[in-house]
Formats: sequence, C-alpha cells, structure tokens
Amino acid sequence: MEKEYAIGVDVGGTAIKFGICSGEGDLLSEDEVSTPAKAPKEEILGKLEEIINKTVKTAKSRNLPISAIGIGTPGSVDLARGYLKGGTPNFANWKDVAISDYLEKRVSTPVFADNDANLMAFGEFAFGAGKNSKNAVFVTLGTGIGGGVIIDGEIYRGTYYAGAEIGHMSIDYKGRKCRCGGTGCWEQYASATAMVREYKSANPGNPVSNTKELFERYESGEAEAKAVLERVVEYLGAGTANIINIFNPEIIVIGGGVSQAGEWFIEKIRISAFGRAMGPSQENVEIKAASLGNTAGMLGAAAFALKMNRESGTGK
Amino acid sequence: MEKEYAIGVDVGGTAIKFGICSGEGDLLSEDEVSTPAKAPKEEILGKLEEIINKTVKTAKSRNLPISAIGIGTPGSVDLARGYLKGGTPNFANWKDVAISDYLEKRVSTPVFADNDANLMAFGEFAFGAGKNSKNAVFVTLGTGIGGGVIIDGEIYRGTYYAGAEIGHMSIDYKGRKCRCGGTGCWEQYASATAMVREYKSANPGNPVSNTKELFERYESGEAEAKAVLERVVEYLGAGTANIINIFNPEIIVIGGGVSQAGEWFIEKIRISAFGRAMGPSQENVEIKAASLGNTAGMLGAAAFALKMNRESGTGK
Repeated sequence: MEKEYAIGVDVGGTAIKFGICSGEGDLLSEDEVSTPAKAPKEEILGKLEEIINKTVKTAKSRNLPISAIGIGTPGSVDLARGYLKGGTPNFANWKDVAISDYLEKRVSTPVFADNDANLMAFGEFAFGAGKNSKNAVFVTLGTGIGGGVIIDGEIYRGTYYAGAEIGHMSIDYKGRKCRCGGTGCWEQYASATAMVREYKSANPGNPVSNTKELFERYESGEAEAKAVLERVVEYLGAGTANIINIFNPEIIVIGGGVSQAGEWFIEKIRISAFGRAMGPSQENVEIKAASLGNTAGMLGAAAFALKMNRESGTGK
Repeated sequence: MEKEYAIGVDVGGTAIKFGICSGEGDLLSEDEVSTPAKAPKEEILGKLEEIINKTVKTAKSRNLPISAIGIGTPGSVDLARGYLKGGTPNFANWKDVAISDYLEKRVSTPVFADNDANLMAFGEFAFGAGKNSKNAVFVTLGTGIGGGVIIDGEIYRGTYYAGAEIGHMSIDYKGRKCRCGGTGCWEQYASATAMVREYKSANPGNPVSNTKELFERYESGEAEAKAVLERVVEYLGAGTANIINIFNPEIIVIGGGVSQAGEWFIEKIRISAFGRAMGPSQENVEIKAASLGNTAGMLGAAAFALKMNRESGTGK
C-alpha cells in the first residue's frame, strides 16, 4: 500500500500547532503560530487556511501527497458536518463555525474536525501510550483537564458530541466552583493550573510558575511541595478511580503537566487510584504516562483525518 | 415472523424473580422465590435449574415456545462464557460460577447471563422509559445504586465486564466510606438505603423504614423529610451531572426507590443536575423515571437472551 500523509492541526488557546504526519505516526514537519484568540472567527479561519495552504505546498515540494487534513479544536464539534458548536470559556468568538465546509472549499482537500482532547487521545491511542489497546481513557492535565475516551477503537463523543468531559466530573459535590458553572469539577483540583494554584496557597511568598517547578521542588525535598503533591495525588486518584469504575478500560493514559515528573508520580497516582477503585473494576487496568508530549494533538488530528477519509470511501 | 419467547430470571440478594416474556416485552407469567443467599453456590444453581425447568413446562403447556433463557445476577459476568466472576459484598458464595455452562447442560435451552444492573437497564431500554433511544444511562436507586450504560444500542460492560459501576463513582473524594472500599461513592449518598439512613440521623426518634415513607412525609410537609430530601436531591444532581458530562446521553432513566415518589422528585433532580452539568453536554438530554418497576430485570434478561440468541445464529 502506498504511504499516506495528512496535515494535523491542533488549535489551542495560545498557539496553533501543525505538521505533516504519515499514516504510521511519523511527524515529518512541525511548526506553530500564535492563535488570534480574541479575533473574530473569520480571522482564525483565515489563519488556518493560510497555514494549510503553506503546509500543502511544503508537502508537495517534499513529495508527500496529502490525503486529508485533520483539525483539533477546543469546544464540541458536530462530527457529521465538522461544525464547531463552541463551549470554550476562554475562546469567546470561536463558536458556530463550519470549519470543514469553510476550509474544504478553499484548500481542495478533505478536512475533518473534532474536539482537541478527543484528537490528543486518538493520537496517543494510534501511536503512543495507548497503542494496541481497544478501550482506553486519556486524561490531559493542562489549563483544565481534557478527556478522551476510546471504546472499541472509536472515539466516544456522546450523542450530541459533548461527552467525555472528564475534567468536569465532580469529585466533590459541594466543592470548588468551576468556570463551567459546575461544582467540584476534577480540573479545579488536578489540572496543572490547579496544582500551581494549590501550591501558591501553601507557599504564597514563593510560588511556582508551572508544574515543572513544582515537581523540581518536590524532588529537592521541599516540604510545601511535598504536602501539596500529596493532596494532588489524592485528587488524581479519586478521579482516576471513577474512570476505572465507570469505564473499566484496558488502559488510562495521563498526559500534560505530569510528563514533566518522573514515573514516581504516575506510581503515586496508581497507588491512590487502585486504593479507591473497586476490586473487579481495577483488575488488569493499566495506568501509564502519555508518550507523545505536545505532538499528540497534531498526530491525532492527522490519524483521525486519514481514518475518516478512508471510511468515507473516495473522499468526502 | 413467528413470535419469540424467553424466560427472564432476575437473581437478587433476597428474591429470585422470573417470568415468561415475549420479544415485544409482554410479561406472560411472573413469579418469585426467596434467594438462598447464604447457601453454597451449588444450591443456588440447583434452585435456578428447578425454576427454569418448571417455567419451561408452564410455557409449553401454554404453547409459548422458549427460545432462550436470560439470567441477571449481581456481580461482574464474563459475557463470552456466561461466567460470574463475583464481586458482590452481600452475596459471599455467589462467585466463580459458570452459570450458562451449568444450566445449559441441564435445561436444553441456550442460557445467557449478565450483570443484573445491565439487564435492568436493557429492559428499560428495550421496552420502557429508554425505548427508541440509542445512548442511555440507567440509574437504579436501591440497596446500592445500580448503573447500566447503553451505547449505540449495546450494553457497555467495560473491557473485563466490570464497568458501568456508576454507584461507585465518587462524588466526594474525602467523603463517606463505601462497602466497596472506595471513598465518597455515590451510593453512599443517594441510594434508597442512604436516603433512609440520612433521614434517621436527622430524626432518630422517628425513623422511616423505606423511601416510600420518606416521600410520604415530604409530601405531608414534614420539615425533617424536606431537609433530607433537599440534600439528597443535590447528591442525585451531582452524580447525574457527572453522567451528563461524561456520557452526554440522549436520556438518563432513574429507577428504584424514586418510582414511589411523583414526577416532582424527578423534576427536582433535573433542576439540580442541569444546574451543575456543562451547557453543551446537557443540551437535549432527557431525565426520566423508569417505567417498568421491578419487572425491568426479568424483561431485560429475556430481551438480552433473545438478542444474544439471534446474534449467535442457530443458537449456541
């Protein structure tokens, strides 16, 4: 079979990452531009069109024919039409966008769009820590907590493309208020942002600016960092145990902030999660760190686009 | 097409309910015997064999040919082999049982076994409040909270048949201890048992013996019952919101204890759940009371057995 290539685009709140990916998960080019997050949606679409056209040209010059383009974006996306409905608090104008329709007319290549957390999950599933599994749940600890659920090899999206919001599973019905309107959402406790915030309350005179610093202070034996991470591990364990009891997956892959820590951190999460989850539900369940880092979104978008393009027959 | 009939058996901790059901969901006979819950598993199997043989005979005499037998049981069941692995705290000897193998040899009809909460869900899905949906989550408020998840018309069981344990989703990571070993499990807050217990703490001098009484006291305007049910509604809302955010189902069906209350109670759960769940995830999601009462398990077992028997071709 001839080699297949796709462009994977990962639209984030601060940067748009994009690259040329092979069907085997090789990333053959990689670039990024800053996201005009406050601009009208037309300007964001224009930026995407520009990026894609430029990358298609690069691919041609390198003799890498592009079969499809995959785009991951925050918010809920109606898969059938590649239509972004929206729902991202920090990305106000980026909603009600016919992403696939708009771009396909302009770039002459099939375009498939989905939620970014779904596609990060699909990247790890296709090429990373979840490879060779059939049922897997992916948890990304970043600004929030992104969730992706793979059931029987397919991304689970919910009836109206608004499921798998694992970061908005409440682990305390009377707990912290969330930006989504909910109470006690997991991401208010265990996202990278929440970890940094929790450390700041514990040590206001000398805060950390990111989880990397937090992990470094932990590893250097600092008492505040130790106390904070011990609490965080319990939050992570509680949410992970819920995932185990609800999905009984083969594997849970944790990415984002934690990739800066070592295997010791994943082991702590395992101990907490397995201490909380039901006996039969946790049997044979693996908990692993993500392996693709911040290329998971691009690779997942590309793998998804190639899969959708194959399944739609001779292209859309 | 000729009419199909199955025997549905619902093995509970106190009673074994069984009946003859048509493929259209008519219950043509219905009976129950008490469960020898503390007896060795051989005795429980013997009881099932006796029930089935008796019911097959009844069916024959009424000219209702039985194509298959479905058995719902607490615990996790390996679907491929109809093998009960176990995992039910209150049913100690009822584990490691080759239910289908044992019975098939003795009753000369294909036997299919699955988890009871799954089959109750499947009953409501096939014939009850979830009819005509494709993605639905069923929540049964009883001694514990039973969960059943239907995705694209199929029961979701998890990789190792130990998923959909929605009652053991924690809604408070530092909350009440659960009999499963977990902390803050939903069933410790919102099962029928938990409601009765919570009322007892509020009004120790005059407790209720079941949720029916609790609802009656609420409806008569009693202050303690009102305060307790207001808290319970928040617990129910928190767990239901999690289900909405995680599964984004078409419908959530709530059964068990609540069926004794009126639509007012479901409406309170809706208000709490929709007040907590994410905007995009809750759009178009329905929350309804179960409609089959305590026949859901039997009907679901029968519907499941007929479906499995059809899908296995000419019988097992």
